[in-house]
Amino acid sequence: MRVLVLGGDGFCGWPTSLYLSDKGHDVTILDNLSRRKIDVELEVESLTPIKPIGERLRAWKEVSGREVGFVNLDIATEYDRLVTVLQDKQPEAIVHFAEQRAAPYSMRNTATKRYTVDNNIRATHNLLVALADTGIDAALAHLGTMGVYGYGWSGSAPIPEGYLTVRLTTPDGELEREILHPANPGSVYHMTKTLDQLLFSFYAKNDGLRITDLHQGIVWGTQTDQTARDDRLINRFDYDGDYGTVLNRFLMQAAVGHPLTVHGTGGQTRAFIHIRDTVRCVQIALENPPKRGDKVKVFNQVTETYRVRDLAELLAKLTDATIANLPNPRREAVENELNVSRDKFLSLGLNPTLLSEGLLEEARDIAFKYRDRADTTKIIARSVWREGMETSPDLVDN
Amino acid sequence: MRVLVLGGDGFCGWPTSLYLSDKGHDVTILDNLSRRKIDVELEVESLTPIKPIGERLRAWKEVSGREVGFVNLDIATEYDRLVTVLQDKQPEAIVHFAEQRAAPYSMRNTATKRYTVDNNIRATHNLLVALADTGIDAALAHLGTMGVYGYGWSGSAPIPEGYLTVRLTTPDGELEREILHPANPGSVYHMTKTLDQLLFSFYAKNDGLRITDLHQGIVWGTQTDQTARDDRLINRFDYDGDYGTVLNRFLMQAAVGHPLTVHGTGGQTRAFIHIRDTVRCVQIALENPPKRGDKVKVFNQVTETYRVRDLAELLAKLTDATIANLPNPRREAVENELNVSRDKFLSLGLNPTLLSEGLLEEARDIAFKYRDRADTTKIIARSVWREGMETSPDLVDN
Repeated sequence: MRVLVLGGDGFCGWPTSLYLSDKGHDVTILDNLSRRKIDVELEVESLTPIKPIGERLRAWKEVSGREVGFVNLDIATEYDRLVTVLQDKQPEAIVHFAEQRAAPYSMRNTATKRYTVDNNIRATHNLLVALADTGIDAALAHLGTMGVYGYGWSGSAPIPEGYLTVRLTTPDGELEREILHPANPGSVYHMTKTLDQLLFSFYAKNDGLRITDLHQGIVWGTQTDQTARDDRLINRFDYDGDYGTVLNRFLMQAAVGHPLTVHGTGGQTRAFIHIRDTVRCVQIALENPPKRGDKVKVFNQVTETYRVRDLAELLAKLTDATIANLPNPRREAVENELNVSRDKFLSLGLNPTLLSEGLLEEARDIAFKYRDRADTTKIIARSVWREGMETSPDLVDN
Repeated sequence: MRVLVLGGDGFCGWPTSLYLSDKGHDVTILDNLSRRKIDVELEVESLTPIKPIGERLRAWKEVSGREVGFVNLDIATEYDRLVTVLQDKQPEAIVHFAEQRAAPYSMRNTATKRYTVDNNIRATHNLLVALADTGIDAALAHLGTMGVYGYGWSGSAPIPEGYLTVRLTTPDGELEREILHPANPGSVYHMTKTLDQLLFSFYAKNDGLRITDLHQGIVWGTQTDQTARDDRLINRFDYDGDYGTVLNRFLMQAAVGHPLTVHGTGGQTRAFIHIRDTVRCVQIALENPPKRGDKVKVFNQVTETYRVRDLAELLAKLTDATIANLPNPRREAVENELNVSRDKFLSLGLNPTLLSEGLLEEARDIAFKYRDRADTTKIIARSVWREGMETSPDLVDN
């Protein structure tokens, strides 16, 4: 298949691009390198040393013999160039990762709130308009988030895959309806993914676009079989307070001798997936697209759920790290249960990569290898959900 | 109250501004005059002759003795100036009409689809971010649309005011939940209002903003007591295929001897409200805002429902006009029922202006008075929901 990967230079996009290339697909990355530029703005870097995109692609050609194309393009603002690329490449499949993806960054200040909405909504909408306009009938897979559902809405009922069956009372008796699961986003970032859902729903209905929305959990791990083939292909490892995600942050903190930073009681239960499964799930989604005229297909892209404090305790035991309970910069429930339906990917052949000591050690070893690159002043999460909320001072000297 | 009216130069915004001024409020209009500029682009004009905003405001001062302020500002793109105006004016209430409001225009071409999303979502989001950032605790009333609910979803059950009570089955038994009514928008324009709802919901929850969303039906009529006081204050009367709405279009068509243009069978049932009630409803909403921490308050701002063909037959009888059944440029149900809850405004004192021969004749007389300004080549609706859909040729010579 000819596949475009929008946002193909990022943490999920890069390993997905290589995985699809390795499987024999003809891959072109579209990316404006915004993730690297936000590093510049935040004065932080991936713990792992990331090579420029040109060098990454040359290295992949060397080790695999395969070409991956690259177009530097901002799909949120360069609509006409996006149309030209679509007409030129005639993709059969498109993966859309081209959104600002950090909840803390989306709550950092007014500029980042506005950027997250302006970038994400326009990126998605431009893509949909361009597909409708060019008539290119590509299977589109978009990276959503479990956060569209919120946490704790359903009690102990499993969160369904996108759609919820409800009953309502009418003068003609009880009606049963299948609805898009009500949106309960916890940040401006998550909110943009709930807006995306409504954009997808409309363009599937009005223009027959074939769209799959992948509501992913928190990704952990760094390497896939492809990114591990050469140091120049290494994937990002974000550990800072805005872009670092919980389990990878714990692994890095253990590696540099920093206490594991638990916000509040750590009673938050979250869904997880290893980066190796992310790339497999995207492939499965592209190979099983909806038909023209179908509603948006939704998968929950998660393999396990864990309570944050349980993860911290597991890591502390494994690594002799200490745990620090810090003020929570987010407005969220102190404790929540989480039960997620995840049958669809399993039924389509996903063999899930579950959390194991071996995998944790592999990831910790990467963190350990590059620990000298860590800036410990960037570890504490300081983007607060409302002005005036308390944050922690640095816990260690740099 | 110090009130800002965003979009206060438009069809609903202008009479609302004068009404609130007449009631003694200190009104400032923020508007980028986009509605006038779209007239230039579409090569059409309001049937009624609209004076420049400066002349409108001078005339209002003359006849009422009251000042209405004006700031030419694009809230979708000029965030910093918006913040400055908010800090300067310290409004106690804000009415947000500043969105592209025509469904056909929003489906006209790729540029208008993109403009509608970019303008409407950024306008709304900038406003919310600015309120959260400045801490200005104004009551915000936003003009939504009945179209967020879609048509025909609820069978004969009345469409509730924003929130729907549903039941779901869980392992712990049946749960009852109140949810935002599922979104079923019929155009890109309507879709933007469903996105607005999610923006409002998040900022009410995270930042305690006090927001009321007014899901309005199709507005008809032209004048209010205030706009009728002087010819220079006259309100817009749009009749073209993009901005004209059904009942006003029928009135204008009757006045110029054009057949009444019914799309499809005319089996569409829609909700209506007279412009005089629009302005009253906005005032009632501002006087009854939610409290800080409340969820978004939603009113259905409609007074009656009619089937389009019944309206056409009523007008044809009243005016000896003929009826033309034309191809429908929209993708929508051929026929639908519509039952709308509208108790909230009634309980807060709205005395609804119902469709009557007297009011229809008043509106038709305005159309008749200005019929020489009509360009009959602009009457047929030609913005189609999908490329290739059939439209009608002109029915009369200009």
